Amino acid sequence: MAKRIPADSVGIVSPELFHFDEPLELRSGRVIEQYDLMVETYGELNADKSNAILVCHALSGDHHAAGYHNPDDEKEKPGWWDCCIGPGKAFDTNHFFIVSLNNLGGCAGSTGPSSVDPATGKPFGPDFPIITVRDWVKSQARLADRLGIHKWAAVIGGSLGGMQVMRWAISYPDRLGHAIIIAAAPKLSAQNIAFNEIARQSITNDPDFHAGRYYDFNTYPKRGLMLARMIGHVTYLSDNAMRDKFGKDAIEGNFGRDLRSGKLNFSYDVDFQVESYLKYKGETFSHSFDANSYLLITKTLDYFDPAVDYNFDLSKAFVDSQCKFLVISFTSDWRFPPERSREIVNTLLKAEKQVSYLEVEADQGHDAFLMPIPRYIQALKSYLGCVIEEISGKEGKPDAG
Amino acid sequence: MAKRIPADSVGIVSPELFHFDEPLELRSGRVIEQYDLMVETYGELNADKSNAILVCHALSGDHHAAGYHNPDDEKEKPGWWDCCIGPGKAFDTNHFFIVSLNNLGGCAGSTGPSSVDPATGKPFGPDFPIITVRDWVKSQARLADRLGIHKWAAVIGGSLGGMQVMRWAISYPDRLGHAIIIAAAPKLSAQNIAFNEIARQSITNDPDFHAGRYYDFNTYPKRGLMLARMIGHVTYLSDNAMRDKFGKDAIEGNFGRDLRSGKLNFSYDVDFQVESYLKYKGETFSHSFDANSYLLITKTLDYFDPAVDYNFDLSKAFVDSQCKFLVISFTSDWRFPPERSREIVNTLLKAEKQVSYLEVEADQGHDAFLMPIPRYIQALKSYLGCVIEEISGKEGKPDAG
Repeated sequence: MAKRIPADSVGIVSPELFHFDEPLELRSGRVIEQYDLMVETYGELNADKSNAILVCHALSGDHHAAGYHNPDDEKEKPGWWDCCIGPGKAFDTNHFFIVSLNNLGGCAGSTGPSSVDPATGKPFGPDFPIITVRDWVKSQARLADRLGIHKWAAVIGGSLGGMQVMRWAISYPDRLGHAIIIAAAPKLSAQNIAFNEIARQSITNDPDFHAGRYYDFNTYPKRGLMLARMIGHVTYLSDNAMRDKFGKDAIEGNFGRDLRSGKLNFSYDVDFQVESYLKYKGETFSHSFDANSYLLITKTLDYFDPAVDYNFDLSKAFVDSQCKFLVISFTSDWRFPPERSREIVNTLLKAEKQVSYLEVEADQGHDAFLMPIPRYIQALKSYLGCVIEEISGKEGKPDAG
Repeated sequence: MAKRIPADSVGIVSPELFHFDEPLELRSGRVIEQYDLMVETYGELNADKSNAILVCHALSGDHHAAGYHNPDDEKEKPGWWDCCIGPGKAFDTNHFFIVSLNNLGGCAGSTGPSSVDPATGKPFGPDFPIITVRDWVKSQARLADRLGIHKWAAVIGGSLGGMQVMRWAISYPDRLGHAIIIAAAPKLSAQNIAFNEIARQSITNDPDFHAGRYYDFNTYPKRGLMLARMIGHVTYLSDNAMRDKFGKDAIEGNFGRDLRSGKLNFSYDVDFQVESYLKYKGETFSHSFDANSYLLITKTLDYFDPAVDYNFDLSKAFVDSQCKFLVISFTSDWRFPPERSREIVNTLLKAEKQVSYLEVEADQGHDAFLMPIPRYIQALKSYLGCVIEEISGKEGKPDAG
């Protein structure tokens, strides 16, 4: 029996691999001679190719943003932004052609550290170059060329995805109509970098890491990757979100301290549900993500700082940008708090850009950007509804509403 | 040449080991047959033994709270609360007799996992029982008996130290005059527990951990302990504190992103100063702290929840407490934020106790409680000044001022 697919889903989707032969010169000065990008698209590109939206993924995301891959797997979860992408949804596939790719350096089909280096016949491993957000956007622009899309109706992303959106507006100021930057920051804080460095050390400390050449040993640093993900996960959730998640059956003021077996063990076994949940999350992640990609992408995050080329005045970076901006933050996000989004807004205002800003009251922490929070989804839908009207040639002025 | 010791220091101090033969029954049901406590005292106990203050240490603290150990070591740093303890300081050794001990399960001389188990002739290691705050306070009460102190003028502590203060007021309601609870919480949140579990896994993942029996292998889980401490350290500092620490020479809005070598490496080497600082902090700590003690004391933190015996109404726990309370929090502390201290205050008010509360504006995060922040130190000094007057039989009503 085939599984039931919701009516507002994009349904069963198939990724497509795009090969690029033209060498890509990177920010580091190194060159990737050739590479593949794994891509999914949802909806139909219109005749004048004006209805395309690029979705940029965050640290642990990939090209599979919506729909399902397996017609028979009833337990399969849809793509990571399925709550936003589909017919009638905020990124309405009845109107838009949505493009989502696994970024270079990733591990879901695009060329990355786990890919075979044609020069050696072995995986790149630690020899894979450090990729920056600018490099990603450069590769995404080539993908746009390949698809015949000169100008995106919108480029959209959350967290590290939002950083790619900013870079699009800077590097290709005339190639996007709208820049939607969600739960992001103009650059990482020292605390952000610190958590990334701790995650990296968790991985490199693991004896199964083998200096990044674990592929040759037919193993991978599972425990290190679990730990890295656990650290990340705690920083994506708010204190309140964790409390709600692990204190549902509990009396008031339990603070998410639900005991796993109803009593304390007085041993080093797992006592609290939050501990087993984190282990579970870490373990699941460790099966599907490449450790070298995790190291790489945390460096991509650390390195993001487009102001360096503009004498540390970020507003100058946006001077040429012709798009309109929507910036969204979430009140309980302590990884990239609203304060950081307001920095982006103030920078854009200083550059005299047209910018809308929405701060969403939400308890879910940084992860909120992935969730179907009504006010958030409604704002995206309303804003993109105006973009549809623009494309159709009708009157329409996007606003966060 | 002997080193110069500041005039307001307690000077050169020597710890003293106290041996206890009477078995200590623990919360877990297990029994420690005999144990040692390493103790330092500062100032003189008065004739009626009414001027004693007990100082309780936090996760990484020990008995050495003030003064110096080595007359010749010019680089030696003083004890961990030296900014508060000394002649003329907030805990004025001209008036008070201060007692500070290394808690059971620690690794600075008191009996703990690294001590030799008389039954086996080998270190206890993972066989050392889980110790709770209640057990600590019980052992501290025995120390008080040994010193002839029936009633402390005050019991004082920050963070986990503050939890011991609360437990004193609950377990020995007539044995302290004042309870000073700083940067604490009535119990850990799910997020707090999550960070502790991640720290524990960092240690137990280390191949040098050897299931806690690393002593037998003449090694210790150095990298795991480093990582655990790095995680802790990030949570003790505020985002702003890190920004200030690592962005001093930088332009506005640098967010503590000072580069170590002035430029990006485009490798997995250390790029930012915050990374090398954390590694340094972790490494220093790993030389001086026992990994099993770290595991143990994070469990002590996780397990603290005195409300469990009072049908989860913490106010009932304090009904018999005869002491006055001072509660202090710091605005940028996100490990135990002011909200958690206000919970304590509200609980005490519900129990109809006399309580003063001070929320100190401070950028230093959780670590603020260890720092000479003028308003904080002044409040402690003012409050304890009134305690001195009480002891002297003069009029005096402590207030946070």
